[in-house]
Amino acid sequence: MNNFEYYGPTRIVFGKDTIGRLPELLPADTRILLLYGGGSIKRNGVHEQVGAALAGRDFAEFGGIEPNPDYETCLKAVAVARERETGFLLAVGGGSVLDAAKFIAAARYWTDGEPWNLFGNRGAGIRRALPLGAVLTLPATGSEMNKNAVISRRATHEKLAFVSPHVFPQFSILDPATTFSLPSRQIGNGIVDAFVHVVEQYMAARDTSAPLQDRQAEAVLLTLLEEGPKTLANPTDYDSRANLMWAATCALNGTLACGVPGDWATHMIGHELTALYGLDHAQSLAVVLPGLWRHRRETKRERLLHYAARVWGLTDGPEDERIEQAIVRTESFFRSVGVPTRLSDYKLPADAPQRTAENQARRGVRIGEDQGIGTPDIEAILALQWR
Amino acid sequence: MNNFEYYGPTRIVFGKDTIGRLPELLPADTRILLLYGGGSIKRNGVHEQVGAALAGRDFAEFGGIEPNPDYETCLKAVAVARERETGFLLAVGGGSVLDAAKFIAAARYWTDGEPWNLFGNRGAGIRRALPLGAVLTLPATGSEMNKNAVISRRATHEKLAFVSPHVFPQFSILDPATTFSLPSRQIGNGIVDAFVHVVEQYMAARDTSAPLQDRQAEAVLLTLLEEGPKTLANPTDYDSRANLMWAATCALNGTLACGVPGDWATHMIGHELTALYGLDHAQSLAVVLPGLWRHRRETKRERLLHYAARVWGLTDGPEDERIEQAIVRTESFFRSVGVPTRLSDYKLPADAPQRTAENQARRGVRIGEDQGIGTPDIEAILALQWR
Repeated sequence: MNNFEYYGPTRIVFGKDTIGRLPELLPADTRILLLYGGGSIKRNGVHEQVGAALAGRDFAEFGGIEPNPDYETCLKAVAVARERETGFLLAVGGGSVLDAAKFIAAARYWTDGEPWNLFGNRGAGIRRALPLGAVLTLPATGSEMNKNAVISRRATHEKLAFVSPHVFPQFSILDPATTFSLPSRQIGNGIVDAFVHVVEQYMAARDTSAPLQDRQAEAVLLTLLEEGPKTLANPTDYDSRANLMWAATCALNGTLACGVPGDWATHMIGHELTALYGLDHAQSLAVVLPGLWRHRRETKRERLLHYAARVWGLTDGPEDERIEQAIVRTESFFRSVGVPTRLSDYKLPADAPQRTAENQARRGVRIGEDQGIGTPDIEAILALQWR
Repeated sequence: MNNFEYYGPTRIVFGKDTIGRLPELLPADTRILLLYGGGSIKRNGVHEQVGAALAGRDFAEFGGIEPNPDYETCLKAVAVARERETGFLLAVGGGSVLDAAKFIAAARYWTDGEPWNLFGNRGAGIRRALPLGAVLTLPATGSEMNKNAVISRRATHEKLAFVSPHVFPQFSILDPATTFSLPSRQIGNGIVDAFVHVVEQYMAARDTSAPLQDRQAEAVLLTLLEEGPKTLANPTDYDSRANLMWAATCALNGTLACGVPGDWATHMIGHELTALYGLDHAQSLAVVLPGLWRHRRETKRERLLHYAARVWGLTDGPEDERIEQAIVRTESFFRSVGVPTRLSDYKLPADAPQRTAENQARRGVRIGEDQGIGTPDIEAILALQWR
């Protein structure tokens, strides 16, 4: 097992009718800026519940944060936070609103040139941030219980991530009932996003010396396989939705990364696809992952066999067949929850593999658990997903 | 799934050669009181490593904290902490030293009569505590990453627990190599302790609506079953010891309790056995658990069948046979790691079941997930373990 550090100070308040606990969770006597997205929280009653819980508090609102939150939008919110002398950011929404809140929190105090610079060295330069909390309304990204954020800059076709302990939410309220009205596309995306978060931490080539972390990862994967289809079929079944919501949080709250290497190449390539062509985050992951596993079959051979056995029960037959079957079943699962897995499904131009690889090459870094993936590999991975 | 709240602010620093990170983890400019036990840390080099890391710091030492730490010993440490104007407690040892540190931390500021009163309402009255951190040298109790502590008062044959968010360790350093020299009895005890911690949270009668928490619990149980015997056979094999150590932490860091009821009757009865007869904590659990499962077979029927299938692969044959086999195998496992499971193994007097039940009756509370266990049940549970 590798040495590791685990730190996760976010308080999770999970369950029915928990938004009413906001007053005790928010710091007293501080001006709050309420952040949200396209307005769905005004249609599903969440905005009203939050407003009731904030009665008597000094707060302003900033709505309109888009999926894959945009740098320019975030800068406007930073200006509001500064003007209003905001002391606390309350993100109400999904991972996009949460990630935007984290960026706004860090950008508020950023002094080293334009805030885009804070992505340098993946956020290592961040020294201070506004405190923040969240009411999560979409199970997917895990942002509610981690220190990561991803922001897009449409003007330059960039989508970058940073990591900073200063942006852990102080608390996150997760009421599964707030997600009942989500479109099935967003639930399907959330299932795929959480699934890929787990495998980024579970499938990096490594020795077999972390059996607990393996089983903790399998716990989340098997839950997603079982509960994902159930909650799509019965969106208002509380328990299935609750299981999906908690599984998505556990997929990326730091526990699965303890003591093991991470891969994250699927995300790195996926971010380029989103930056260039606007694919949903989960769509980009569903396209990249199968190709990446096929391209990296030899490096990941032992992990793919382990995955085939533990997650899909594939223990008989030639190794290569088991591996291919595990990949095929993974693709089928993604499609079954409504997320296509081929570039052709998204009608991308024929040079998409090449352009995506070139866009990533601008970062100047090789990716994957052993930095084993360079520009030609990215093109090859995506070419495999044309079929 | 039940509503729940999860909060765990302890920073875990895990791995080889991590004691040297103490200087960056300790608060600056604060007087430290170093707490430890019987002196094994002076024989295995840990005391020296900690001393080197504390070079230049203002610190005092308080050794001699016994297994099942005693109230009177803790009070002496509280006096030292007060005299020395201690600002931070550093526990170096196993769960007993950690639990003592938590009690000392809370007792330091306790003003409502004698500090024993802080056990009232399981610690709900605690308003303030000294900050503390730990260097863990014995994998077992999970105290390094939770807010629980158990203290014994030998004068009155009492062993009580409290829970308070004020006593979370700020950090815990876990270096598996510091445990290489532990006697096999302590490792065996640690394996049983961690195992029972999991089942206290996994085996409470309930519906089947928390499949993720089930699998997270099974992840720890299966790891203990696999890695426990390995690390007893090869005490200096780093990976097995690391897996045991992390499994013991994950067994009781709050994650497995999310959204599910707990039982904890095995612990409540075991504490009485320790208070009366001095059994090791794990010995008391190994005696009580099988009897409790047999006595509560009907209430826990669905859970016992689930456990039999998932942990022991018992899926065929009549239900009662599967349940009995699962209990028998659990007992065999405890004995295989050196922890006997019958009262007769510990040469207790014939009236031990009755006396233990009467001692528990002094608490004036029924126990178990549904308060389904009263005084006669406790006597019956222990009587089953005379065989």
